[in-house]
Amino acid sequence: MNVALLGHGTVGRGVDEIIASSVPSLKVTRILDLPDRCTEERMTPNFDEILDDPEIDAVVEAMGGLEPAHTYIVRALDAGKNVVTSNKAVVAAYFAEFVEHAEKSGARLFIEATCGGGIPWIASIMKAKRIDEISSFSGIMNGTTNYIIEKMRTDAVDFDVALPEAQRLGYAERDPSADIDGIDVKNKTIIGASVAFDVACTKDLPVTGIRNLKIADLTFLESRGYVVKLLGRGVQKDGRYAVAVEPVCMPLRTLEADVPSNFNLVTLEGATIGTLKFYGQGAGSLPTGNAIVQDLLDCEQGVHPRYDFSKPLAYDPSLLQSNYLLRTKATAPEGAKPYLEGYYRIDGLDAAQARAMLDSVLEEDPAAFMAAFPQEA
Amino acid sequence: MNVALLGHGTVGRGVDEIIASSVPSLKVTRILDLPDRCTEERMTPNFDEILDDPEIDAVVEAMGGLEPAHTYIVRALDAGKNVVTSNKAVVAAYFAEFVEHAEKSGARLFIEATCGGGIPWIASIMKAKRIDEISSFSGIMNGTTNYIIEKMRTDAVDFDVALPEAQRLGYAERDPSADIDGIDVKNKTIIGASVAFDVACTKDLPVTGIRNLKIADLTFLESRGYVVKLLGRGVQKDGRYAVAVEPVCMPLRTLEADVPSNFNLVTLEGATIGTLKFYGQGAGSLPTGNAIVQDLLDCEQGVHPRYDFSKPLAYDPSLLQSNYLLRTKATAPEGAKPYLEGYYRIDGLDAAQARAMLDSVLEEDPAAFMAAFPQEA
Repeated sequence: MNVALLGHGTVGRGVDEIIASSVPSLKVTRILDLPDRCTEERMTPNFDEILDDPEIDAVVEAMGGLEPAHTYIVRALDAGKNVVTSNKAVVAAYFAEFVEHAEKSGARLFIEATCGGGIPWIASIMKAKRIDEISSFSGIMNGTTNYIIEKMRTDAVDFDVALPEAQRLGYAERDPSADIDGIDVKNKTIIGASVAFDVACTKDLPVTGIRNLKIADLTFLESRGYVVKLLGRGVQKDGRYAVAVEPVCMPLRTLEADVPSNFNLVTLEGATIGTLKFYGQGAGSLPTGNAIVQDLLDCEQGVHPRYDFSKPLAYDPSLLQSNYLLRTKATAPEGAKPYLEGYYRIDGLDAAQARAMLDSVLEEDPAAFMAAFPQEA
Repeated sequence: MNVALLGHGTVGRGVDEIIASSVPSLKVTRILDLPDRCTEERMTPNFDEILDDPEIDAVVEAMGGLEPAHTYIVRALDAGKNVVTSNKAVVAAYFAEFVEHAEKSGARLFIEATCGGGIPWIASIMKAKRIDEISSFSGIMNGTTNYIIEKMRTDAVDFDVALPEAQRLGYAERDPSADIDGIDVKNKTIIGASVAFDVACTKDLPVTGIRNLKIADLTFLESRGYVVKLLGRGVQKDGRYAVAVEPVCMPLRTLEADVPSNFNLVTLEGATIGTLKFYGQGAGSLPTGNAIVQDLLDCEQGVHPRYDFSKPLAYDPSLLQSNYLLRTKATAPEGAKPYLEGYYRIDGLDAAQARAMLDSVLEEDPAAFMAAFPQEA
């Protein structure tokens, strides 16, 4: 099967390398790149050349960003070309629109590489759904923030030391806000919920990152048996669903607490399967490239992923209740019970209420930090 | 699709329940059981009735044991009926024979439920293999022994207290030797290696269980930063492979160390995918039933699993080297370096050499215990 790559950065190069070395049935015949980067015969700066090439069966979008990725994906689907993408931002923003265009033309859309890198996460959700309703999912879906937290714990350094180290190793972008403010996890949570719950997931969910995490917070929590992890979560119950992204205090000696370096760990729950967890490299040239090539092999074998957003589920943030830890030097919010050392505990908020509370605290104390305790804590 | 169940015990009932409640496209039309247990119209004590029923497309073997399961599977495959089995003992013993019969008649063989209960382990190995050579796999593949170890750790009780508790909860059989002596893990390791390495895996591998584990061993190791887990392992390198089942000292704060209760955690490694881990319920009516129904759904959709045992790999135990901890009151073996309190360390043995050493120690001290340290320790 002939494949065109849109973009030849970290991920695109990984796909090219894996196909060349290990998958003789696939062939990368065209690569879209900027005019000054077209250094070999397969490369073109002109998307129409790819669209008009009848020999190309699948287009891999590995450019990232919203435009022109969005336009290219729509045009490829309209032209009847199957699309494989690793671009979480564009799928989170335009998932329903892409599915509509795919259904109209009969083209197929593959999105495994948007979430969890090499972890077969989307495929596992879709497989579990053949039997069970997915009652919840959650996970460490961002390797950059996990690396920063583990670096802070292990080396006892503060956030502003760990972040540049993550950047030096290529785990964090020069502009790290998509990772550390939870935007990347938000996109993956929207995609996961859309697939798991058969619903066009709201884009207006509570999102809190780890920008304000201090080594003192980790020390305080560790002495009480917890470590902070940035989790994306979704629940479905009685015709309603909720989603949220926030730091969560995970008990020590859980699998989540011990996820090292920049790895990911994602969990789903269903009535008959119980709890399933999947661990692996959530990013990187070869793991993400591997996920794309797996999608291409499925495409070649005629697999047709079906996405259905028609389930009449109401978005209800109150489904996702937690107790919260808050560190602030500002006036404590109403109902906050003081702990030691400037920490407070506020019980029984949903993630949207907690985010609203944090917003109001941040006005007075821009360094405030908040994390949820799992329900049983 | 019409399905016949061979056996209506824990697993068979789980399959029946899941299909009835959640999978309208499948129908359990016949159930083979003992004459005095045939309490409903679908039940028959006569296997030929199932074999001769042209409406039955798939036969689920959930009887366990070698005979008559082996004969029934061969006869079903010969009759062109697709077979789904959860029986690790029979597949480990007759895998190549089953595949030969399936290939001759064109029937298909599904074995997901033999390993890891509800964890999609066999499917994940086969998927990873489409791109990568599997360089190694390992895992906690037996929930009973993991439960016993965790019970000993958590409640500070000895093996002979934890085992009856596991039996009371239904996690261990009345005759627990298949679990605690590592036979169950041996079967799963043989099946995993056969699929991962494309080889008819040797049945003559080193196997050591946890029958001789004492709470004192766990305390001794925990103070040094380890916990014991019973692992099945396989490695492949340069045209050779090795497999082994033995207690392994896992560093605290690893995912393996934190696997609770009767859960399983299995790992595979490949060049581009890196490390993937899968966690879930490794046994039980609904998780194992779920794995069987997933296989039935694949069967219905025309999936044809291909097993190939033709790779010219030589079995070479020396590929799997470890350092070993030995607790014995007997004369220490040659090369053993004494630790404190009756413990010794022997470096650089392969699993077969270690098992031979333990055999010789056990002659003098039937209570001796041995565990491998991971390579880097």
